[in-house]
Amino acid sequence: MFGHAGRVLRVDLGSSDITVERLNGTLARKYIGGSGLGTYYLNKETNPLSRPLGAENALILLTGPFSGTRLPTSARLAVVTKSPLTGMYAESDVGGTFGLKLKRSGFDGIIITGRARKPCYLYVSEQGARILDASDLAGKDTYEVDDALKSVHGQKVTVASIGPAGENLVKFASIMTDGRHARAAGRCGVGAVMGSKNLKAIVVAQGTQSPRIADPDAVSESIRRWSRVLAEQGQGMRAYGTAGGLESNEFIGDMPIKNWALGTWGKSESVNGEAMAARMLTGRYHCASCPIGCGREISISAGPFAGISGSGPEYETISMLGANCLVDDLEAICAANDLCNRYGLDTISTGSVIAFAMEAYERGLLSKADCSGLEVKWGDADAVLTLIRMIALRQGIGDLLGEGVRRCAEELGGVAEEFAIHTKGLEFPAHDPRAHNSVALSYATSNRGGCHLAGFTHMFEKGGVMPEIGLHESQDRFGTDKKGWMTSKLQDAMGMYDSLKLCKFTLGCGLPISQVVEWMNGVMDWDVDVDEFMLTGERIYNLKRMYNVRHGASRKDDDLPLRITTSRRNTGGAALNLPHLGEMLNQYYQVRAWDEFGIPTSAKLAELGLGEFMMTGEPTK
Amino acid sequence: MFGHAGRVLRVDLGSSDITVERLNGTLARKYIGGSGLGTYYLNKETNPLSRPLGAENALILLTGPFSGTRLPTSARLAVVTKSPLTGMYAESDVGGTFGLKLKRSGFDGIIITGRARKPCYLYVSEQGARILDASDLAGKDTYEVDDALKSVHGQKVTVASIGPAGENLVKFASIMTDGRHARAAGRCGVGAVMGSKNLKAIVVAQGTQSPRIADPDAVSESIRRWSRVLAEQGQGMRAYGTAGGLESNEFIGDMPIKNWALGTWGKSESVNGEAMAARMLTGRYHCASCPIGCGREISISAGPFAGISGSGPEYETISMLGANCLVDDLEAICAANDLCNRYGLDTISTGSVIAFAMEAYERGLLSKADCSGLEVKWGDADAVLTLIRMIALRQGIGDLLGEGVRRCAEELGGVAEEFAIHTKGLEFPAHDPRAHNSVALSYATSNRGGCHLAGFTHMFEKGGVMPEIGLHESQDRFGTDKKGWMTSKLQDAMGMYDSLKLCKFTLGCGLPISQVVEWMNGVMDWDVDVDEFMLTGERIYNLKRMYNVRHGASRKDDDLPLRITTSRRNTGGAALNLPHLGEMLNQYYQVRAWDEFGIPTSAKLAELGLGEFMMTGEPTK
Repeated sequence: MFGHAGRVLRVDLGSSDITVERLNGTLARKYIGGSGLGTYYLNKETNPLSRPLGAENALILLTGPFSGTRLPTSARLAVVTKSPLTGMYAESDVGGTFGLKLKRSGFDGIIITGRARKPCYLYVSEQGARILDASDLAGKDTYEVDDALKSVHGQKVTVASIGPAGENLVKFASIMTDGRHARAAGRCGVGAVMGSKNLKAIVVAQGTQSPRIADPDAVSESIRRWSRVLAEQGQGMRAYGTAGGLESNEFIGDMPIKNWALGTWGKSESVNGEAMAARMLTGRYHCASCPIGCGREISISAGPFAGISGSGPEYETISMLGANCLVDDLEAICAANDLCNRYGLDTISTGSVIAFAMEAYERGLLSKADCSGLEVKWGDADAVLTLIRMIALRQGIGDLLGEGVRRCAEELGGVAEEFAIHTKGLEFPAHDPRAHNSVALSYATSNRGGCHLAGFTHMFEKGGVMPEIGLHESQDRFGTDKKGWMTSKLQDAMGMYDSLKLCKFTLGCGLPISQVVEWMNGVMDWDVDVDEFMLTGERIYNLKRMYNVRHGASRKDDDLPLRITTSRRNTGGAALNLPHLGEMLNQYYQVRAWDEFGIPTSAKLAELGLGEFMMTGEPTK
Repeated sequence: MFGHAGRVLRVDLGSSDITVERLNGTLARKYIGGSGLGTYYLNKETNPLSRPLGAENALILLTGPFSGTRLPTSARLAVVTKSPLTGMYAESDVGGTFGLKLKRSGFDGIIITGRARKPCYLYVSEQGARILDASDLAGKDTYEVDDALKSVHGQKVTVASIGPAGENLVKFASIMTDGRHARAAGRCGVGAVMGSKNLKAIVVAQGTQSPRIADPDAVSESIRRWSRVLAEQGQGMRAYGTAGGLESNEFIGDMPIKNWALGTWGKSESVNGEAMAARMLTGRYHCASCPIGCGREISISAGPFAGISGSGPEYETISMLGANCLVDDLEAICAANDLCNRYGLDTISTGSVIAFAMEAYERGLLSKADCSGLEVKWGDADAVLTLIRMIALRQGIGDLLGEGVRRCAEELGGVAEEFAIHTKGLEFPAHDPRAHNSVALSYATSNRGGCHLAGFTHMFEKGGVMPEIGLHESQDRFGTDKKGWMTSKLQDAMGMYDSLKLCKFTLGCGLPISQVVEWMNGVMDWDVDVDEFMLTGERIYNLKRMYNVRHGASRKDDDLPLRITTSRRNTGGAALNLPHLGEMLNQYYQVRAWDEFGIPTSAKLAELGLGEFMMTGEPTK
């Protein structure tokens, strides 16, 4: 079998059974790997009665078929499970070195089920896997866990772990990898699922295995060529990280400010990647096999946050914990990022829930007494840091905030629902749907909830094109025409990236999907063309959708918060736009051949070879 | 006091206390009468803890200040209460002779509170009011009650009563007046409120009192002139009733077909007002003081429905029980209308809930067993008639259907919510919001829920203008510009019609609001101008809104069903339009000076003299 190791590790933490399952070539070609294959397994492992934090949920970690080939950005890892935040399909995507290490140990992935009776960690190597005691790691933060496990297993292992937030089942807890070169499987609360299994960490040893490559010479040549191109095209990203884009994102009205209420802030210059480079940058780091290197190493040497060092904040983090909370102190944002990394919290959801709390506090829906005497005021960095601790440790109001904005709004009642910014329970990342109509449609329809990565469509309203799928011209970001078509096609294509486990930043560096198709054939000995690439992406997208449909999802869940559809910001680069969601959904469902309620038709499922996932009873026909 | 009688009857059915309350001139000028004054009383009588069907709810019947003056169409009556269907503000409007009789008995209105221990009826005359035993009327239909009470009190009384549906607390039960010359206070379940009070009927004797008119000569002259104009302009309405418009409404895509799923039907010709005139019309009837006469007297002499006679169906009834259920048999629709009138059921909500049931049945969300063996199939007139009986008597599935579509959808779950066509719990009347964008906005924002009468805006997208308020040109029905402005202004103006108790059909006959203003001054000795007219309308609209806000309403409740915002019909006169609700709401809230959540600002309430109705705690600021 080319590309894939052909072996998936299966760990039942309840019985301590560890087995190895074969991955066959048919399944690999049908669902590729990463989140595509993960969705297939999730459908098999869980059903609508499975509780996200019950022993019956499955935590599925999967590499892609390019992992270990050195193809640029190919070493990412998918984490697939049922989300405690949304109650539906969850995927979370992480870079770093874990995916590569897993593949080099001879495994395409790990399926973890059951619940251990006491804290444990999993040690994986070419020799197999062992479940080890983690009692002395309980309560430790992710940097401490990384240190502790490397001191036991050597510096060459990679550690994925949860912090106190995951142990405490915070609904948006993350799984962190690579210690101070932090990388996060941040979204959807995958860290809480790991916590619910009493699994504190997974350690993967340095392995020696490599995937078989069908045409090694051609692939090697392409690796050399594209690594050069990406290194060159990624210079800006390497220089300033993802936060280099902060000012321009504010300028076009893309950045959330004051819980998505304002159109301009004017403070981006003081907290962006350039400011970081000037004031605290000590180095950069790369995910395995990545020639770009957007990771930031920082060190703060003076002021109240002196001593903080390690991973620096990304664009999303600065926007959500900074602009969205009106915090304009870069050092404080770095401290907040450091806390989130250590506690194992998704910085996006954390920033969102804190901004929500600030608005609720301002509007009198949360009192000072509710917040244990803390004044939860806009722009107050100390309040942000205190709330992060309270969330991770589930203290006071942090216990409620740790449930995510949807649950908070239900609890507070009244108009709180109207400024709880999420779709399907997943808090929005730092891209305002009013700045890009395709992003509005993507958030509404993304299978994991409010997510720009499932479609990555904003790229194609800012100059990007994808001629192989007919997207010859970049689209008007405020227009409505073609959005259904464009968004569905890009979701299909991006679903392939999430399954192949390639980084989407390659799209900004000129890597065309025809090249990706060539890699698939060169590595796996397939004869895929762009049509099959897209059909496979569509299959994977529909399979994720069907998982949600089985959990009750339909049009009613493909929604946007009222602030986004109804409230103009009146200033900034997207001052007046309000996305016409109904119109775009109508187009989208038609292009997808889903019915009026957003449910894939039997004919479409049959066409995609998903007959086995049709719902019995056909409740919508 | 001019115009008003200055006396409101207060009846506590719990204690049997009957008192007369003075209406002062300040209150009359501030809230006019009808639903405006009714809202003022409702705010005083009830609070968020009052249960709609509890003894603590108030049933408020109010005439307008023109009642008894013979001004054309001036004899209507407002019924204001808290709705068991929506849980919020309810108003229902009824023509006939009841309002005039009440005024001639010397009362502007009746406020009924408490609950009688056994079935009773209220007898009102110039000598006052008495609560009388209605034990022998229990279970009788509204035509029978009319006969029975006229045989006791004489043929000159007017009877308002509920049928079995109201007694059985069907959430969309109506209050019916005038026996076989049926007129309905149909919407919002006011009949259930009456039923919850054990009040079977209200009888009003023929009185002799007349309101004082400040300038009787000028008013008399205007009555003569405008009665002539309206009689002439209303010829079409007199000839064919409201159902004369059926074909043209289908043609422009305004008529609901198959639970709002289809854009064309092609059967209008066989069930419209012309068909009725050709096949069964035996006469026409007028509301008191009305020169138009849209009421239909029918008699069916052959076929399965031979013997049915009395009131014929209106446009709304034919559309909702006919087209919306795919029933194209006019005689069957007449039979359904007859049943609804007798049982005391709102034909709009009844048609809506039956169409909903048909769709749920087709989609397998309701089984034959759920329906006691009844096949609830599209177009099956017998099923419609059977379901009407089951609803009124709360038998089998009728018990659930009698709760309205919102509650049905909650019960059935799944995608049912997506084809439950209502706003705030009130089923839509027979005008598709996709045919008129202003209607979409009106339905979303109407205080009683999905309602086209609160704004009556479609008139102004079909040629109508209202130059006095700046509406110099009829608007593009598919456009979005100015809809917020247009809709809010028309709601303010129509709120005045609902408070003055004038019929909105006068708008189609050329009666300008400047003439209405002249009438106000001529009758009441006021010095109102169009500005005060509009300001008073705005005050009344905001007061209704505040009642709902106090009950938890905000932007989240200003919504439309997903089918309306997301699903194109693809055929017919409004094949492609999908209203952009978010955009229109943004405009609307700005014009109204309501906040982002649709809550009137303190400044706006102060400007309107509604300071006493501001919410304490100010939870949204």
